[in-house]
Amino acid sequence: MKLDSLRFASRFDGVTGSAIREIFKMIAKPGMISFAGGNPALSALPDETVAGIVQDVMKLNGKAILQYGATEGYPALLESLKPYVEKQLGCTVPAVLPVTGSTQAMDLLCKALINPGDVILVENPTFLGNMQCMNLYQAKLVPVESDENGIIVDKLEEAIIRHKPKMLYTIPTFQNPTGKTLAADRRKPIADLAAKYGMIVAEDDPYRDLRYAGEPVPAIKSYDQESWVVFLGSFSKIISPGLRVGYMAGDPAILRKCTIGKQSTDVHSANLNQAVVDQYLRRNLLPGHIESICASYKAQMNAMLEELETFPVGTRFTRPEGGLFIWVELPEGIDSKDLLEKAVEQHVAYVPGTHFFADGGHENTLRLNFSNSTIDQIRTGMAVLRSVFAEALR
Amino acid sequence: MKLDSLRFASRFDGVTGSAIREIFKMIAKPGMISFAGGNPALSALPDETVAGIVQDVMKLNGKAILQYGATEGYPALLESLKPYVEKQLGCTVPAVLPVTGSTQAMDLLCKALINPGDVILVENPTFLGNMQCMNLYQAKLVPVESDENGIIVDKLEEAIIRHKPKMLYTIPTFQNPTGKTLAADRRKPIADLAAKYGMIVAEDDPYRDLRYAGEPVPAIKSYDQESWVVFLGSFSKIISPGLRVGYMAGDPAILRKCTIGKQSTDVHSANLNQAVVDQYLRRNLLPGHIESICASYKAQMNAMLEELETFPVGTRFTRPEGGLFIWVELPEGIDSKDLLEKAVEQHVAYVPGTHFFADGGHENTLRLNFSNSTIDQIRTGMAVLRSVFAEALR
Repeated sequence: MKLDSLRFASRFDGVTGSAIREIFKMIAKPGMISFAGGNPALSALPDETVAGIVQDVMKLNGKAILQYGATEGYPALLESLKPYVEKQLGCTVPAVLPVTGSTQAMDLLCKALINPGDVILVENPTFLGNMQCMNLYQAKLVPVESDENGIIVDKLEEAIIRHKPKMLYTIPTFQNPTGKTLAADRRKPIADLAAKYGMIVAEDDPYRDLRYAGEPVPAIKSYDQESWVVFLGSFSKIISPGLRVGYMAGDPAILRKCTIGKQSTDVHSANLNQAVVDQYLRRNLLPGHIESICASYKAQMNAMLEELETFPVGTRFTRPEGGLFIWVELPEGIDSKDLLEKAVEQHVAYVPGTHFFADGGHENTLRLNFSNSTIDQIRTGMAVLRSVFAEALR
Repeated sequence: MKLDSLRFASRFDGVTGSAIREIFKMIAKPGMISFAGGNPALSALPDETVAGIVQDVMKLNGKAILQYGATEGYPALLESLKPYVEKQLGCTVPAVLPVTGSTQAMDLLCKALINPGDVILVENPTFLGNMQCMNLYQAKLVPVESDENGIIVDKLEEAIIRHKPKMLYTIPTFQNPTGKTLAADRRKPIADLAAKYGMIVAEDDPYRDLRYAGEPVPAIKSYDQESWVVFLGSFSKIISPGLRVGYMAGDPAILRKCTIGKQSTDVHSANLNQAVVDQYLRRNLLPGHIESICASYKAQMNAMLEELETFPVGTRFTRPEGGLFIWVELPEGIDSKDLLEKAVEQHVAYVPGTHFFADGGHENTLRLNFSNSTIDQIRTGMAVLRSVFAEALR
């Protein structure tokens, strides 16, 4: 029998793979200025520090690092991670689980909770990778309305009453793709609604340390009396994405279910990578490192915002206080997907905004990343985009 | 609302987590001789070589290693892995996908293929971790009969006709838990049946290089004309399990679906870990390392087999030609699960065999691992087991 008679699982119906990862392949050529992706700057990646740490941990504990580890996490990291997370969130957390990037946190949480057809409320637009995750668990994604201060609490309650969701998936701080931050005074109400209606909140907060203006905002998790909030954290943006270390923090029964799910997913996250993060925490290397990253990212973001000021009349864009992304709305009638090819011909790339919407549309939007380009590249690349968009408007 | 009103996903109904991983926790105390688990010997873990390699790759390519990588795999490893796999299997393979341990290979393959209720044929007993994986995808596991030479081909065809399985999951070489090897002359017939009936074969072969006697046997994959066989490989037993690097090899359309599944599972496997394996392949370090591991494992296995000769009358056991495990059948009426506690009190652990059966039962069986104990520990530990079992028979 020929293999083309093979039927794939129905969870893949309508799932075609990450548009961003496809764009990555299209733009993987020298000289490309990429505002696509969400990569840290190469200069922000601490290769020498990591190499030194690896030497140290391999010398001290090499055999244990190369041996099988516990699904629950590398013991040293478990020790250092809990106080770190509690300090981050300003509240106690009953349990933490190190995972293989916070992408795995979302995957395990869906595995633990989502039956096909379950409703997950999402920001619209939202993070593409986790949208694909939720789709593969055959969740029904229902958008909830936001304004410039994030999710609108009344609209959220309406949606909860109407759709009886299993979960709210939110990126409250410097959201991907919009750069918006959920206002401080909406965070307790959201935790309260979760407890009132019995809805899990997946609080995906990988950008919170990348703040270039304004004051830190408490995590939704810090208002969580009944443990309905699961916090998803990552070291990808503040140490290295290539190491694939993230974590989840929340109720022990939920994390236990995720741990069982993880046993048959990758047994455990690689010990060496967890040991590197552990040393970052123990040696208190993060504050200084984050400060230096933020200084450059702030300058890069401001350069991009300056350039956007000169874009064709009718162009609107967010002014984030941190994170990695700016969200752009071109005048109606322009399709950023069509224009991507022209931009790429001139060696500039971005992600068309339509990919980030659970229900598609919004063809006049796009997401720009500033962290992975120098200020010179931002000036040059934005000039290209300005002319491509201006020409389309003619 | 209290969190105890939370309902977990129905895929967890009846899944309680890995019995082995629970036993691990029970026996994690000093002085324990563990014949449970499938850990390499600490002496087999090349900590100095790995530390040296990490220094080299971080120096040469540290920034790229810490940056996001491609879901499809670390470019250097993709280059070195394909010829390695082709040499291993003695056939061309159209595509390879590096993954986060071969456990992830099985998870992604099920994700790509299995709808709830789909039948997967399994050896009985079989590997616990992947049984949990298949259960979490809500597959129906149907045992297929084996003898001392592995799966019986006629019985397999009967089961295929009767159950119309989506997949056969098999560990053909030094099987976990029995140590049995599928005879050479049954391998082509199994590949042929897969193509005849349109059934995927997941050929899970992590132990094939750990051969202490007899001649290497061709992979089922090497007889695979129509690409129904997906080969799952691992570096856990021949370099390090803690690094979590495995791979799958097979049809590009199947691997593409697995790649899309992987995008939202962990984005990509950690680059550093893939770079270490790449260097093992490029520097041709595996043959020498495997030779030295095999020399010790062979002596350890033989010591354990010698001890088993002196076990109470009626004790039967396999005589593997390689791998990590010996399978023991005690006289009927003895429950190895009840006796585990007594053994652990005397600081010796094993895994009761019942856990490895899709349909339970077989309480008089157990799995012994010899790789993770010295010969002295094997002598001491087996003496304890002999007396525990002898007493139970009195």
